Amino acid sequence: MSELKYSVELSAFWPPADRCVPGGYRKPMEIEQMLDALAGIDGLDGTEIYWPGDFDDPVAMKSMLDERGLGVASVGVDIFADAQWQKGALTSADTALRGEAIQRHKDAMDAAVVLGVDTLTMWPGQDGFDYPFQSDYRALWQRLTDGVREVGEHNPNIRVAVEYKVKEPRSHLLVSNVGKALTLVHDVGLANVGVCLDVGHALIAFENPGESMALLDAYDRLFHVHMNDNYREWDYDMLPGSVHLWETLEAFYWMDRLGYEGWINFDICPFREDPVRASQETISMARQLMRAARELDHDRLETLQKTGDSVAICTLLRESVLKG
Amino acid sequence: MSELKYSVELSAFWPPADRCVPGGYRKPMEIEQMLDALAGIDGLDGTEIYWPGDFDDPVAMKSMLDERGLGVASVGVDIFADAQWQKGALTSADTALRGEAIQRHKDAMDAAVVLGVDTLTMWPGQDGFDYPFQSDYRALWQRLTDGVREVGEHNPNIRVAVEYKVKEPRSHLLVSNVGKALTLVHDVGLANVGVCLDVGHALIAFENPGESMALLDAYDRLFHVHMNDNYREWDYDMLPGSVHLWETLEAFYWMDRLGYEGWINFDICPFREDPVRASQETISMARQLMRAARELDHDRLETLQKTGDSVAICTLLRESVLKG
Amino acid sequence: MSELKYSVELSAFWPPADRCVPGGYRKPMEIEQMLDALAGIDGLDGTEIYWPGDFDDPVAMKSMLDERGLGVASVGVDIFADAQWQKGALTSADTALRGEAIQRHKDAMDAAVVLGVDTLTMWPGQDGFDYPFQSDYRALWQRLTDGVREVGEHNPNIRVAVEYKVKEPRSHLLVSNVGKALTLVHDVGLANVGVCLDVGHALIAFENPGESMALLDAYDRLFHVHMNDNYREWDYDMLPGSVHLWETLEAFYWMDRLGYEGWINFDICPFREDPVRASQETISMARQLMRAARELDHDRLETLQKTGDSVAICTLLRESVLKG
Amino acid sequence: MSELKYSVELSAFWPPADRCVPGGYRKPMEIEQMLDALAGIDGLDGTEIYWPGDFDDPVAMKSMLDERGLGVASVGVDIFADAQWQKGALTSADTALRGEAIQRHKDAMDAAVVLGVDTLTMWPGQDGFDYPFQSDYRALWQRLTDGVREVGEHNPNIRVAVEYKVKEPRSHLLVSNVGKALTLVHDVGLANVGVCLDVGHALIAFENPGESMALLDAYDRLFHVHMNDNYREWDYDMLPGSVHLWETLEAFYWMDRLGYEGWINFDICPFREDPVRASQETISMARQLMRAARELDHDRLETLQKTGDSVAICTLLRESVLKG
Repeated sequence: MSELKYSVELSAFWPPADRCVPGGYRKPMEIEQMLDALAGIDGLDGTEIYWPGDFDDPVAMKSMLDERGLGVASVGVDIFADAQWQKGALTSADTALRGEAIQRHKDAMDAAVVLGVDTLTMWPGQDGFDYPFQSDYRALWQRLTDGVREVGEHNPNIRVAVEYKVKEPRSHLLVSNVGKALTLVHDVGLANVGVCLDVGHALIAFENPGESMALLDAYDRLFHVHMNDNYREWDYDMLPGSVHLWETLEAFYWMDRLGYEGWINFDICPFREDPVRASQETISMARQLMRAARELDHDRLETLQKTGDSVAICTLLRESVLKG
Repeated sequence: MSELKYSVELSAFWPPADRCVPGGYRKPMEIEQMLDALAGIDGLDGTEIYWPGDFDDPVAMKSMLDERGLGVASVGVDIFADAQWQKGALTSADTALRGEAIQRHKDAMDAAVVLGVDTLTMWPGQDGFDYPFQSDYRALWQRLTDGVREVGEHNPNIRVAVEYKVKEPRSHLLVSNVGKALTLVHDVGLANVGVCLDVGHALIAFENPGESMALLDAYDRLFHVHMNDNYREWDYDMLPGSVHLWETLEAFYWMDRLGYEGWINFDICPFREDPVRASQETISMARQLMRAARELDHDRLETLQKTGDSVAICTLLRESVLKG
Repeated sequence: MSELKYSVELSAFWPPADRCVPGGYRKPMEIEQMLDALAGIDGLDGTEIYWPGDFDDPVAMKSMLDERGLGVASVGVDIFADAQWQKGALTSADTALRGEAIQRHKDAMDAAVVLGVDTLTMWPGQDGFDYPFQSDYRALWQRLTDGVREVGEHNPNIRVAVEYKVKEPRSHLLVSNVGKALTLVHDVGLANVGVCLDVGHALIAFENPGESMALLDAYDRLFHVHMNDNYREWDYDMLPGSVHLWETLEAFYWMDRLGYEGWINFDICPFREDPVRASQETISMARQLMRAARELDHDRLETLQKTGDSVAICTLLRESVLKG
Repeated sequence: MSELKYSVELSAFWPPADRCVPGGYRKPMEIEQMLDALAGIDGLDGTEIYWPGDFDDPVAMKSMLDERGLGVASVGVDIFADAQWQKGALTSADTALRGEAIQRHKDAMDAAVVLGVDTLTMWPGQDGFDYPFQSDYRALWQRLTDGVREVGEHNPNIRVAVEYKVKEPRSHLLVSNVGKALTLVHDVGLANVGVCLDVGHALIAFENPGESMALLDAYDRLFHVHMNDNYREWDYDMLPGSVHLWETLEAFYWMDRLGYEGWINFDICPFREDPVRASQETISMARQLMRAARELDHDRLETLQKTGDSVAICTLLRESVLKG
């Protein structure tokens, strides 16, 4: 049985904004308040923090986390929130801007070492395009693979988990889905460069998240997992299982079956919800679904999967998961 | 508490075909075989039948149904399967073709009378367009409203339930969603012309099916319900609740809350599934979800809905519906 | 031939933000700078301004506009940017909040009178829901229709154009598409309450914008037009025609054919583009497409539409619109 | 300048059916009639034919083609139309069925040798799944990679172009997008196994087709091109450029820029259109767009792409491509 740890990322507690409400949907909290709130969530093991938005002093951050018994799922690297990278960071045609984006990853890796964290999450969110004809795709891809390789080579002991997403904030991102991520990772060719599967991003790429986990695992590249839910056409970062109950359960089932060891980070974005209560419900649902996934009759399920007997599988799921 | 009856439509038993497998995914059954199969499904009250594809002799059909204790949810009218109507039936610019489509509805109404059925399902599936610039939309809408009115006036005792759908077999259908359906119905202005809400069609129109039911009910136009599931971008006609568990449950909740009295017809399309087993699982799931919907704490739910407290609602649903 | 006027809305010049770049994609401009920029755009007749975000003193604003020869397409009412309305404005269960939202519309109408503008744009952007089971849809719809009616009754000489949109900032908005908008307008039952068709919003509702214009016109409710482009699953507010050239051209064709008299307001959102150059290209494209729409062989087109001859229509469009 | 050849696939002339009109949208033609029709299309160089649906005697077929001066773009292999493979062909758990699917590819390769054709198109259209939990994804992917490898090894002189598609006829296909296709091809590891990019399939996977071409070219895997158009949520196989003019033009631009040498096969599916006229318009549009793509100011475009100047690119496209 795989050993899983659960985190809610710190940014779930920052006041969210969007283009309609640029001033933010709620009042900001102090960092210590946010960490206290996290520490109070039943069943939570830690958090995920962004460099340098959430912290720029790893020693101080480590001490604040240790005091509260909070682990760190992964260090995320912010190369998307600064307007200077609005047309690309790792793929920028501007050598200085691109170098700065790469350097930020190296600094974050160094910070991760101080924190005692072995996983970096890289999300090239501004590396993409918006309009037809806008980009020289060959040049972008070349800069991307070179950039990721340079990051990976900085410290082979830190695993770099590249997070794919099909859109937002650009209408098209380069590392859009599990297949593009694997193509990138294969080109990079380093043992410490793999993939962060975000269940919500898999859904908006019309993937079955469990399938994508199995595919990444087949190439030993399932490095990290994010989880949340949405309506498949946009990344609403809703509470996990609140829309796609079955596919979320199936993701837990596959993490278990594949022997995934590590963290699930919940990167929910509670625009109109209290982040503390949203985090608690997220963890409660996750733990309940993991139990349900383990209690499914795996032998029978695997037998039914051999012939793809979807009706019998629906019956099994209904009887196993739903009350009365 | 509303009194619901469950049917599976007869066409679920016809061998499905698509453009990849035009020869069909399985062997055809005889009509009596199909009715026997329906009669054997536990918890099923009847079926829905198409005029004239499923039957053209209402007396003979009534006798076959009565023998097996099967009720009829509604008589569907087929104005889409004949290639002559490929560019429109009720909206055809060809007066003869359009007249034939209207007449077919009148004949179906007469057959319904013989069967003792009070609801007709009208689905103008070929009435739409595919290409930009292809159509004179004003003329189409005029012919549509006039045609539906003429049908409705034929027999005020038969309720005409217009079924909306956003696409397929055309890339754009005219009566695409609940709002267009209500606009049509208002224009027609007859008490016996309302709407058939197909839960799957609501989902592919990015509606919340429960919301659409409530809207139709506000104007006393929720005449009939079809149910099935899909992935929201295409009408796969999968088993209900197999993808959208929560929204399907919510549809049952609203049928109960609105006091919907009548049939839910399951128009599943089991391409690769045994139709008998698929129908049984459909009915079992439906009955279980209806029970679950009724057992929800309605008072608490309505209180939480007042402030839109989605976190507490997620908790309530998880604890009420899921085991463990 | 219909007389059209072109505006770019003032908010196109505000620095856009999103949840990834909450600090904004560029530096803010002063209001006078923005108006100067608008006045310098060749072929532009005016702007569209939001109450009270863009102005709260109509006399001062009128004077600034007059100095530059800028007309006003419509006064937009902001009931979405203030976090207090994050769970609904016109539909809020909180009587005070709801009253404030209605009052804001009345104030905006009074300001419109001072400006000499006859059209108000109402966009209930926070009036919707995010999660299954979150809302009592009946109560929401009732408050919405009552609220819109109260606004409309405030001044029958000001046309209230309700702008529909299927999503954003909520995952589901109540007034989601042209059919829901017409249902609302019919329920309200006032001659001065109609619809603002936003071409981009029509596209994300999987509508053909020309069809929706024709439908609104059939009920004399095409009060106002917004235009921009996107990829159909999200409202990217891109330059018009930059993705959907044919459907944009078709929208111009229908405005001409329906004799639409009035403004087209371009509500582009140039996240990573210079707003001045983006506005100029928008107007240049619009004028070119309107010329192209008028130069199409309307007689031949209407003949081909009678039989829906899409191949001949493709040929006609290719030969009429494309060089070479 | 790359040398392109244009084909329309023979199946465009077969009467299309769908689940609404299983009897077909028009009368069948004799094979010689279809070839005569193809031979009469101005600007067309050949066709693409399916083994064994279109032909099972390569000598006879070659003679019919030669008589009419028709080349062959590629031999397609039909492992989807026979109901026996409805739950998978190359991935079937049934050893005999899977072996038959592999053997059919080998036979098709042998037929291609007789025809003098060097490209096989492999489309694993039934290799996927429909329901959550339905499949053991690891086993499917293993069988798929092994199967494709076995096919590729049969004759290293025949290029095997794997065609990806995200859905239809299953709701989820395994080889769903360009990234998954490249992952497969990399795993297979044979020089003669690459990818067939279908522009319509790229669009429904929310890809920019030009980007996907550039990515495939970066790994020397752009083996074959199919082209058609759609509305991005379903593969309608409409006339190229009839919806996505700019992205279609951009695909031509990239084929030119990448020096793609070979065939573009138009696999349109004219449900309600005359296939001869549809094919002629397809070829006319394609040739016009290729000319337009070549006449764009490539130097200026590449300069603008360096900074991603989308406004200037819109201006350039408008002025270069649109009349007046």
